[in-house]
Amino acid sequence: MGLSALIHSASLAGSQVRQDAAAEVNNFWRDPMKKNLIALAVLAAAGAASAQSSVTLYGRVDAGLVSAKAVDAAGVSLTQTKLDSNVLNNSLWGFKGTEDLGNGLKANFVLESGMSMDTGAQADTTKLFNRKATVGLSGNFGSVELGRNYTAYDTLRSATNNTGDTNMAVTGDVWKVGGDYNLRTDNSVRFDSANYSGFSGSVAYAFGENKNAADNLNNGATDTVSLHVKYANGPLLVGYAHQTEEQKRSVTVPSSTKYNLIAGSYDFGVVKLNAGYNKVSGSAARGDDTEYQVGVSAPFGATTVYFGYANGKNEIGAVETKRAGFDLAATYALSKRTTAYAGYKTYETKNTKIENTVYGVGVRHVF
Amino acid sequence: MGLSALIHSASLAGSQVRQDAAAEVNNFWRDPMKKNLIALAVLAAAGAASAQSSVTLYGRVDAGLVSAKAVDAAGVSLTQTKLDSNVLNNSLWGFKGTEDLGNGLKANFVLESGMSMDTGAQADTTKLFNRKATVGLSGNFGSVELGRNYTAYDTLRSATNNTGDTNMAVTGDVWKVGGDYNLRTDNSVRFDSANYSGFSGSVAYAFGENKNAADNLNNGATDTVSLHVKYANGPLLVGYAHQTEEQKRSVTVPSSTKYNLIAGSYDFGVVKLNAGYNKVSGSAARGDDTEYQVGVSAPFGATTVYFGYANGKNEIGAVETKRAGFDLAATYALSKRTTAYAGYKTYETKNTKIENTVYGVGVRHVF
Amino acid sequence: MGLSALIHSASLAGSQVRQDAAAEVNNFWRDPMKKNLIALAVLAAAGAASAQSSVTLYGRVDAGLVSAKAVDAAGVSLTQTKLDSNVLNNSLWGFKGTEDLGNGLKANFVLESGMSMDTGAQADTTKLFNRKATVGLSGNFGSVELGRNYTAYDTLRSATNNTGDTNMAVTGDVWKVGGDYNLRTDNSVRFDSANYSGFSGSVAYAFGENKNAADNLNNGATDTVSLHVKYANGPLLVGYAHQTEEQKRSVTVPSSTKYNLIAGSYDFGVVKLNAGYNKVSGSAARGDDTEYQVGVSAPFGATTVYFGYANGKNEIGAVETKRAGFDLAATYALSKRTTAYAGYKTYETKNTKIENTVYGVGVRHVF
Repeated sequence: MGLSALIHSASLAGSQVRQDAAAEVNNFWRDPMKKNLIALAVLAAAGAASAQSSVTLYGRVDAGLVSAKAVDAAGVSLTQTKLDSNVLNNSLWGFKGTEDLGNGLKANFVLESGMSMDTGAQADTTKLFNRKATVGLSGNFGSVELGRNYTAYDTLRSATNNTGDTNMAVTGDVWKVGGDYNLRTDNSVRFDSANYSGFSGSVAYAFGENKNAADNLNNGATDTVSLHVKYANGPLLVGYAHQTEEQKRSVTVPSSTKYNLIAGSYDFGVVKLNAGYNKVSGSAARGDDTEYQVGVSAPFGATTVYFGYANGKNEIGAVETKRAGFDLAATYALSKRTTAYAGYKTYETKNTKIENTVYGVGVRHVF
Repeated sequence: MGLSALIHSASLAGSQVRQDAAAEVNNFWRDPMKKNLIALAVLAAAGAASAQSSVTLYGRVDAGLVSAKAVDAAGVSLTQTKLDSNVLNNSLWGFKGTEDLGNGLKANFVLESGMSMDTGAQADTTKLFNRKATVGLSGNFGSVELGRNYTAYDTLRSATNNTGDTNMAVTGDVWKVGGDYNLRTDNSVRFDSANYSGFSGSVAYAFGENKNAADNLNNGATDTVSLHVKYANGPLLVGYAHQTEEQKRSVTVPSSTKYNLIAGSYDFGVVKLNAGYNKVSGSAARGDDTEYQVGVSAPFGATTVYFGYANGKNEIGAVETKRAGFDLAATYALSKRTTAYAGYKTYETKNTKIENTVYGVGVRHVF
Repeated sequence: MGLSALIHSASLAGSQVRQDAAAEVNNFWRDPMKKNLIALAVLAAAGAASAQSSVTLYGRVDAGLVSAKAVDAAGVSLTQTKLDSNVLNNSLWGFKGTEDLGNGLKANFVLESGMSMDTGAQADTTKLFNRKATVGLSGNFGSVELGRNYTAYDTLRSATNNTGDTNMAVTGDVWKVGGDYNLRTDNSVRFDSANYSGFSGSVAYAFGENKNAADNLNNGATDTVSLHVKYANGPLLVGYAHQTEEQKRSVTVPSSTKYNLIAGSYDFGVVKLNAGYNKVSGSAARGDDTEYQVGVSAPFGATTVYFGYANGKNEIGAVETKRAGFDLAATYALSKRTTAYAGYKTYETKNTKIENTVYGVGVRHVF
């Protein structure tokens, strides 16, 4: 069987399943159609111009040596040397695929799972595909995704982090003085617009799905709304993002936490600058946060050097808690997919004198 | 290295592993032979007539918007709107493969895992490959599979469900008045016969494996036996299926639940009819069930419309519990692998007045 | 698009991601580069001599019928017949990949997960990739791996097991009289040397990572050190391996368990002989073990027959516990990847008269 015969066979696979279903056992509904990677590969090799589809196994593995020092409020210091996972980036593996439906429409899915390279454990023991589990459609209008997904707020925030979207960036440690936002939500519908001369936007809604018979009367389900708008053109990226996390809405004690972010970056070629300003307003118990961060990165051949600074303040009534820190990191591209790195970060909670310092060197490989 | 060289290299891979094992480290037993997908793809592209094998990564992702209303025995109604997984079909991913052993004999395996697209969670937190984990051989005689598997009873039941084998079919909700059967069992050996002029059959036995020293004396392990026989030819499918689920057999309190199903379908082309009749006999505490269902489906181009009705009755001595319901669904094939759908189902337990109604719209993509 | 165009496109994929990152959203850090299996397959088909990379989905599925008899110290016998997983070898699936970095340097990763074919459950519910999760580099110097890994001691031990590295080998049952070693460790750095005229070695260190503020003062973290050196040339393999498992080191109660193994094999062609001698020294509570094992295997065409004997003794002060047993197994290669097998093993703890006997037949398929 030559190439063209295989292509023909592959493109008929769907209808054959339908016909088989009519005979003997109607397993059309249960058994997924058996699209073979082999057939796919042959389709691609032949460069057929007709409808294509692909399934990709992909991932990222990151491990390194870390020295972490923590000083508690009593001034007691503990230093741990570790072989750690996720030193530069969180490790992950997943499947994703796209099917061309014609007329510019595509069906897409992503199943993405986090894991730790130091222990082999999955990142979230209760959710295999904790990072992303979506199915949706995309086209000229943009894309719609259903399932567990990143919030639209998170997308701008991670795109403008001061040390790349890495764990070496001190922003994530400093900004959560008053508590962290949910970067992903279950039960979500997310729309990302197309790019209109550099302008684009995204909005996501995650259903609470925890009504009970009593709540039914006062519409008391929790849910999360997020959105961002941004302008990205040439060296410039600037955007605004918002997220509201509802806590068990009720008539007597309404409570929600709202995040508002303005952030951007400008790439001068020699150096790239990042900056972000974040305001959080929460319940009386959680209080409000005011946060900012700046960063600069510069490429030197295969090496890129990063510096970041972040500052955060939480106010619960008259009680202020302040935190600040900075980081310094360098990556060296051994290839397009393999990177050696070294990094340092330190941050301190001003009032309590709690200090954290991390040194790390390691390797990250994407596949 | 050209195509033929790669094929040669691939077909030698096994013996090379054996030779390597003799030298340095004998890792023949531990390390699986490293059959590369690339080599496979090349084999297929070249259309080699010799022994072939394949490994397929496959799956199904289904998510949609659902409005579910439940009315309890006190007449209190709760309506929840959700972004749900598995609205039309359960989501899954898996690996499967076949190796041609020559003389018509094949080695086969399936590893299939269920997950929820709304949360990313695996369907059964205690069993990664909860849907199927089998290894076996097939040939002219049929096939034998060892491992966690569907029962032979389930195969006929799902093939004759009234709204395709979907979650929109009301049968699964209505028929379990007296309790549900196990559609899959651990520790099973299953034989499926070849097709003899339309006649075929299947039998499966699942070991109980829970003897203890005392039971050893009275042969007290639980186990499950299932079988089906069917005739499927052209538009007609008709069959009989049985399943016996032993509960901790002992001399003093023998207890088992027996399922007997007669079901079939006839495809007139314009419409297809399904029907099934199920009798369950259980212990004095569980009682007996009498159940039936009918369905009709009709294709209109890329659209298929389904209607199903199911009726079930449980009798524990003189106490009867009755349930009935119906469903209506439509699927629209965006492509051979991507389907948009809408569905409605409602069922009521007559005695208690408990009602459930579900509306759903969504998308299903198979890969 | 022809073959060469696709190759070009694949080799540019990395830099395209970088450029895309500068525009719109900087997702360089979060999203792994999307290396498609299709592109890979095409690269391989074209036989490009330039830098290559591969990702392999692989696995091993093993299931069989087992009759297991256990006699306890009171002489009570229990016989269980089961459909069991891992009768000859533990079942597993995984992803692994290699990227050529140029100059003989490669980036490598392995993610390997164990599972049971009888239930579909993952082998370790707390660790998805319980068997191996490593990322590292290899070259002329050998290889370095970071992550969860086999110990260097285990590598020699499993390479010299008396019935292949199988579960039919009685060694694993007999040698653990005084307690088992850890064949894998979290948080490890492992170096394997290159092969120098048959000589090679390996050393691994696993960080304890469980210091607390008090331990910080007395250096009290647990950790594991392992190493082996071996000479493997033609029919001969001989080596020495060591492993030290530290228990919560402290000033007051230092405690560690040390394993020392001398083992080897010689392949006469007609038969192959294996032998091993193991000394374990532990705490006063665990005591010391003295263990040995011998084995012989012989190929007859597609069939290989194995015989093994193992003997172990634990001494806690003056209290001796002795165990011994033997096994007999045969494998028949249905193909290079599919093996039918039958095996028998029996072992007895001399003092307590506890006996275990296992008969098994089954099939093992590697993919």
